[in-house]
Amino acid sequence: VSEPPGCAALRDQYAQVRARTLELAAPLSPEDCAAQSMPDASPVKWHLAHTTWFFEVFVLEAGSESYRVFNPAFRVLFNSYYNAVGDQYQRSQRGLLTRPDLATVRAYREHVDAAVDGLLARGALSAREAGVLEIGLHHEQQHQELILTDVKHLLSCNPTHPAYRELPAPPRQRAAALRWHREAGGVCWVGAGERGYAFDNERPRHRVFLEPFELASRPVTNREYLEFMRDGGYTCAQLWLSEGWSAARARGWRAPLYWEPHHDGWRVMTLAGLRELDLDAPVCHVSYFEADAFARWAGARLPGETEWELVACQAPVKGNFAESGLLQPAAALELSGAPGQLFGDVWEWTRSAYAPYPGFRPLQGALGEYNGKFMCGQQVLRGGSCATPGSHVRASYRNFFYPPDRWQFSGIRLARDA
Amino acid sequence: VSEPPGCAALRDQYAQVRARTLELAAPLSPEDCAAQSMPDASPVKWHLAHTTWFFEVFVLEAGSESYRVFNPAFRVLFNSYYNAVGDQYQRSQRGLLTRPDLATVRAYREHVDAAVDGLLARGALSAREAGVLEIGLHHEQQHQELILTDVKHLLSCNPTHPAYRELPAPPRQRAAALRWHREAGGVCWVGAGERGYAFDNERPRHRVFLEPFELASRPVTNREYLEFMRDGGYTCAQLWLSEGWSAARARGWRAPLYWEPHHDGWRVMTLAGLRELDLDAPVCHVSYFEADAFARWAGARLPGETEWELVACQAPVKGNFAESGLLQPAAALELSGAPGQLFGDVWEWTRSAYAPYPGFRPLQGALGEYNGKFMCGQQVLRGGSCATPGSHVRASYRNFFYPPDRWQFSGIRLARDA
Amino acid sequence: VSEPPGCAALRDQYAQVRARTLELAAPLSPEDCAAQSMPDASPVKWHLAHTTWFFEVFVLEAGSESYRVFNPAFRVLFNSYYNAVGDQYQRSQRGLLTRPDLATVRAYREHVDAAVDGLLARGALSAREAGVLEIGLHHEQQHQELILTDVKHLLSCNPTHPAYRELPAPPRQRAAALRWHREAGGVCWVGAGERGYAFDNERPRHRVFLEPFELASRPVTNREYLEFMRDGGYTCAQLWLSEGWSAARARGWRAPLYWEPHHDGWRVMTLAGLRELDLDAPVCHVSYFEADAFARWAGARLPGETEWELVACQAPVKGNFAESGLLQPAAALELSGAPGQLFGDVWEWTRSAYAPYPGFRPLQGALGEYNGKFMCGQQVLRGGSCATPGSHVRASYRNFFYPPDRWQFSGIRLARDA
Amino acid sequence: VSEPPGCAALRDQYAQVRARTLELAAPLSPEDCAAQSMPDASPVKWHLAHTTWFFEVFVLEAGSESYRVFNPAFRVLFNSYYNAVGDQYQRSQRGLLTRPDLATVRAYREHVDAAVDGLLARGALSAREAGVLEIGLHHEQQHQELILTDVKHLLSCNPTHPAYRELPAPPRQRAAALRWHREAGGVCWVGAGERGYAFDNERPRHRVFLEPFELASRPVTNREYLEFMRDGGYTCAQLWLSEGWSAARARGWRAPLYWEPHHDGWRVMTLAGLRELDLDAPVCHVSYFEADAFARWAGARLPGETEWELVACQAPVKGNFAESGLLQPAAALELSGAPGQLFGDVWEWTRSAYAPYPGFRPLQGALGEYNGKFMCGQQVLRGGSCATPGSHVRASYRNFFYPPDRWQFSGIRLARDA
Repeated sequence: VSEPPGCAALRDQYAQVRARTLELAAPLSPEDCAAQSMPDASPVKWHLAHTTWFFEVFVLEAGSESYRVFNPAFRVLFNSYYNAVGDQYQRSQRGLLTRPDLATVRAYREHVDAAVDGLLARGALSAREAGVLEIGLHHEQQHQELILTDVKHLLSCNPTHPAYRELPAPPRQRAAALRWHREAGGVCWVGAGERGYAFDNERPRHRVFLEPFELASRPVTNREYLEFMRDGGYTCAQLWLSEGWSAARARGWRAPLYWEPHHDGWRVMTLAGLRELDLDAPVCHVSYFEADAFARWAGARLPGETEWELVACQAPVKGNFAESGLLQPAAALELSGAPGQLFGDVWEWTRSAYAPYPGFRPLQGALGEYNGKFMCGQQVLRGGSCATPGSHVRASYRNFFYPPDRWQFSGIRLARDA
Repeated sequence: VSEPPGCAALRDQYAQVRARTLELAAPLSPEDCAAQSMPDASPVKWHLAHTTWFFEVFVLEAGSESYRVFNPAFRVLFNSYYNAVGDQYQRSQRGLLTRPDLATVRAYREHVDAAVDGLLARGALSAREAGVLEIGLHHEQQHQELILTDVKHLLSCNPTHPAYRELPAPPRQRAAALRWHREAGGVCWVGAGERGYAFDNERPRHRVFLEPFELASRPVTNREYLEFMRDGGYTCAQLWLSEGWSAARARGWRAPLYWEPHHDGWRVMTLAGLRELDLDAPVCHVSYFEADAFARWAGARLPGETEWELVACQAPVKGNFAESGLLQPAAALELSGAPGQLFGDVWEWTRSAYAPYPGFRPLQGALGEYNGKFMCGQQVLRGGSCATPGSHVRASYRNFFYPPDRWQFSGIRLARDA
Repeated sequence: VSEPPGCAALRDQYAQVRARTLELAAPLSPEDCAAQSMPDASPVKWHLAHTTWFFEVFVLEAGSESYRVFNPAFRVLFNSYYNAVGDQYQRSQRGLLTRPDLATVRAYREHVDAAVDGLLARGALSAREAGVLEIGLHHEQQHQELILTDVKHLLSCNPTHPAYRELPAPPRQRAAALRWHREAGGVCWVGAGERGYAFDNERPRHRVFLEPFELASRPVTNREYLEFMRDGGYTCAQLWLSEGWSAARARGWRAPLYWEPHHDGWRVMTLAGLRELDLDAPVCHVSYFEADAFARWAGARLPGETEWELVACQAPVKGNFAESGLLQPAAALELSGAPGQLFGDVWEWTRSAYAPYPGFRPLQGALGEYNGKFMCGQQVLRGGSCATPGSHVRASYRNFFYPPDRWQFSGIRLARDA
Repeated sequence: VSEPPGCAALRDQYAQVRARTLELAAPLSPEDCAAQSMPDASPVKWHLAHTTWFFEVFVLEAGSESYRVFNPAFRVLFNSYYNAVGDQYQRSQRGLLTRPDLATVRAYREHVDAAVDGLLARGALSAREAGVLEIGLHHEQQHQELILTDVKHLLSCNPTHPAYRELPAPPRQRAAALRWHREAGGVCWVGAGERGYAFDNERPRHRVFLEPFELASRPVTNREYLEFMRDGGYTCAQLWLSEGWSAARARGWRAPLYWEPHHDGWRVMTLAGLRELDLDAPVCHVSYFEADAFARWAGARLPGETEWELVACQAPVKGNFAESGLLQPAAALELSGAPGQLFGDVWEWTRSAYAPYPGFRPLQGALGEYNGKFMCGQQVLRGGSCATPGSHVRASYRNFFYPPDRWQFSGIRLARDA
């Protein structure tokens, strides 16, 4: 839709994004990079290879006759889910791909980077090709976040609570009191317009009719969530969706993911290892089911995604993103009159099922499989988290996960009918 | 919300609805009534008892001090999912409840019917109680449909293709050509108003904004669906939602449920046993995933539930309902200018996830569990089927099932952006 | 091997055995007869039909040209596991066969009985055919026991604890003190000889070498088993086989099957409904894993099947069999010098894996599938139970079930090295 | 039972065995060493650590007050199944233990080796301690074989068919014709005597009575197995045990594990990557079920473990063991009059369920869990394979795996009644 950046700008962005991915993998051993802790997560090595595969298949193979494929077997090994490209290695077995080893995957990255850089240096990309390259950079940023969430899950399976790396302690401060922000609703425009980068699922910009509503000034804190727990939140069926109650019992949920009871209170597994629970930080690693039950307990509800967007599009895209280096949600320093912490810290579950916008058109060709085919059974989350690259998010950005998923940095913002 | 009928009118309705349920069970042996063919289905005997339990627990126990409970054990045995009422016998094991036997369940019905009739004869119900009784009648009508769908599934598991009962052959006639009906959209009112009976999930009436769209003049026929099949519909991954493709492969789908290949073409299991496929009848027993894939193949999409309602609220609630006695979808005799067969024949999958309307308020007390707690992971279907009591459906009626479900009489109506 | 009885004797036996099966089914409703509570169990109606199928397929179809098959569909529906006969309806779905109904299955029995009786009355069976008929009678006796064990399991799934029928309370008496009976071992003959009826798996009679051993004078009682439980039997991993420990944890075992804790002690589900636990009766409904763990706790071991047989072949085949009408194990009235209660009350788990005897030859043809193909993964049990027809058992009789199975009337007799 | 070697001899053995394990791991990357391809297999790194843990826990902690534990967390992480030692990390998740990394595990080995060597150099071990150390060496040899079988399985999951390392091609030669070797049977002594090393499960030496039998002169070849396949071996239910037939269908078996069809015939995955099938080599990677079905098809049976031992104890313990460097079964060069290839090439499935010998006494203490608690549900295999250290095997050696297991180097030797 919109014009992609020119080749010179893309060359810089490409170099930066690709380098950032390697930075994220740097603290990890070859073993750390190879293991897969559950079917939903992927090994870091696989992320490193798949993001490279994306450029190889969609940019180099499509756009450069002289390009020499690094290893033809990778076409299958590192294809995530593009049926139009061909077969895929079984997702749940990605941790068994000990070959290629990490060094070879790094060499693969260098090989592809050199070829892409050559194209960009020569200004040899058409506008369409540049558009695909740009998608590849946003795609790689998504995988940067997944590297962090997947490694966190992997390390949490190790009873010795190993750290991804040393991290500064988040600043400790009292969370501001929760206030309600009112919106009048009516016919509103939402979704991404023609200008600027957006995924196909954010478009087209379109009108919705909203009733008046109120949005909470900040996410729910660990302190508030503990109240819910103490008040029987996990044992009172009537607070829960039917599927949520089944999931909670079948999986034995008694607290958010990564919480561990100690004699002196809860501790939480973080990317820096086990830490005390910060009561003022936003609650994190809750499923949609827990978010929904909490909201019902609190006499509120979760926001619709368009309600959220209506408020968020008035706020600057600033917050505790991955660049802060905390890699953990933190209490906000201060909140202005408008709702705060909409961006960063925690992805915010919405009550909206992930579905196509009116007039939605998936991208042409294999990239049409990027988003559209997942529009069933998932819920939309908004706003980015402490593991999201700051330049990756925007008010119209739609993330989506299944209702029982908890390994993302997902939290809760309340809304209510006005 | 609205005023329930008076006691005299309710007394007639009660007698009619309760008698109709017994009529539906009449052709079945005690064994037929006791078996459960899958966790999603229930034994007919269980339906007979649970609908009675509904009146016992919500009307008689709540409203009549002198009422003598038929058997205290039934409170658990026949509680479907009301946590506020108490424990429930495990859903997947309902087929193991050989006691009480069918005769005892009939006696249970008589016991409760006598007590309810007594209350109604004395005019002893408050408006609130009459409202609950009315819910119980609509509830029983839902189970009337489930009796038919669940028995059909059960009998289909028997390789001898037994019939529920003899049924007339549906009239054979050529389906009318498919035409597109255009709606201008804009801000529209949908949902049930204050008057007349409606479930809580149909309310409140509210505004939505719709883009212009077109709706097909009739459901997709078996002939059209066969074209999709012949064109590789079940083998081309790119036509499917990702979850749908997984489901189709895992379950080995190659045709709608109940279709069986014979040397001379497809046959279908019906409530009258095995029959030839009527190419002009609406395709039936397809999942949401199949409906969605068909629509993509056809260059169209499924309607949103509000799009459907906007058209349907202009049409009379007439069609091939259970009262026709066909118990099978049939080609429409003729179609006027407006879209037809919106009611009856087949439930029509919509692209809308089942979710609360803006301002939704579940009923007070245990009955609040009736609808609200299922608002996750399911898709809305509209219009009723050949197994639905005709007086049960209306334009605002929202049915809901999981995307892979196929044992309901579910079919496809296409829509497209204008 | 041995000569079967003549036609006159067989005619009487046939009539008696077939009538006895109907007697066992008499207290049950059509629903009771149709349900299947787990894949290992079968509906009573299925037992009634399958035992009839056995005579139809192996005696009438094979031996009588004029025989008219009752219903050709039954060939598949009621084939248990004979691949040589053809396809089989899926075992785990036998509870879905609501058609044929119970009345039809009774008619099927009458049809086949008339034909068999005709053959026997005319003396029209060859020796080989008479031999197959005799197998069919022993086969039916096995299913008589299964009718009781399967119905008990089914009724135990009903929280109202229904009774199969009223039963006399077993006599209450103090169990005799456990004593040890010594055998010298050496080269011993075991297995069935040429004379008298035996299954193929009991033959040929052959020699084994046994070390000296001691066998307990009676089975383990509920009182003794409670000691094991109180001493941490279910929580001490080192008492258990590795697979047993996994099974016990995965299935949440804390007591034998059918035991229910009450405020005033344990109750047990019996064929007469819930009853107090008789501390002096043999413990029953324990798995091989529990029997093995108990033996280890007691400083003993389970007997080998040939050790058991060596002692049992010296004892009369008398005991608390199904004919006693108790249908529950009971404390022995008194014990002579030799080990008692070897027959009846409870099947006794042995440490012997079910395997072919040296020189084992399965029966010719489809009946070769009767026993031989199950000789893997199961343990041998000996002696019959309170649900076994007394005329069915003998010292060489080998029953076999999987180590975690508990729904048979299975108990424990101890042995130890001398 | 028998006297363990003196400290000087043990010191040499210890050094050699421990070095050999590292040699086996040498060709592998950290990723290769960390992955777990199925719950039955373990990562190489885990094998390296667990064998070390064995010496730390059972020799150093028990026998040396001054020993400093390397890392207390390893007590749980690398405990395989010793409940008497304490908790164990979940077996199926061993591939998630990316920490400790491979370098740390190597340091762990060095730490423990230095301490053990110090004890041995000082001659500081009691006879009991020396006995435990000796068990540890045999234990480590078992894991040497598992390293090879588990890596082979892991690499087979990679569609690029990577090699463990380059390996010489086995010599190609025509397999000798199969002959039958007769044994008279009678009362025979089997099991390990008091002298020499043996596991507790090989003792006590005891008498059995055997009928006359014949044993095949060599294992079944790939050529012979292909005949079975061509003759419908995998599609004829009557050749199979009932459980075997279910397993074969559920898992889609159509050939031994690691066989892949190519346009020009079968190829097999080996530790050197994909190779052509050697028709004269013993068939390998078959389950007990396949071995049993083959034997039935061939009109023979599998040998009993004591039959096998009776013949094998007359033969030298020589063969194609891991030291040959082939790491693949190979056709025998020539066969003398007696049965050959009893040792090495392939483990030979026996018809004997793994059970305690008469008078079996497990080792005292935690080491009593080494063998005894697995005596249920498994079959005995005899003779060692091309992946077994030659010094590890003897005629009385009893290996055991589950009937469906195929990832060991398991093959078939036939026997028959004389």
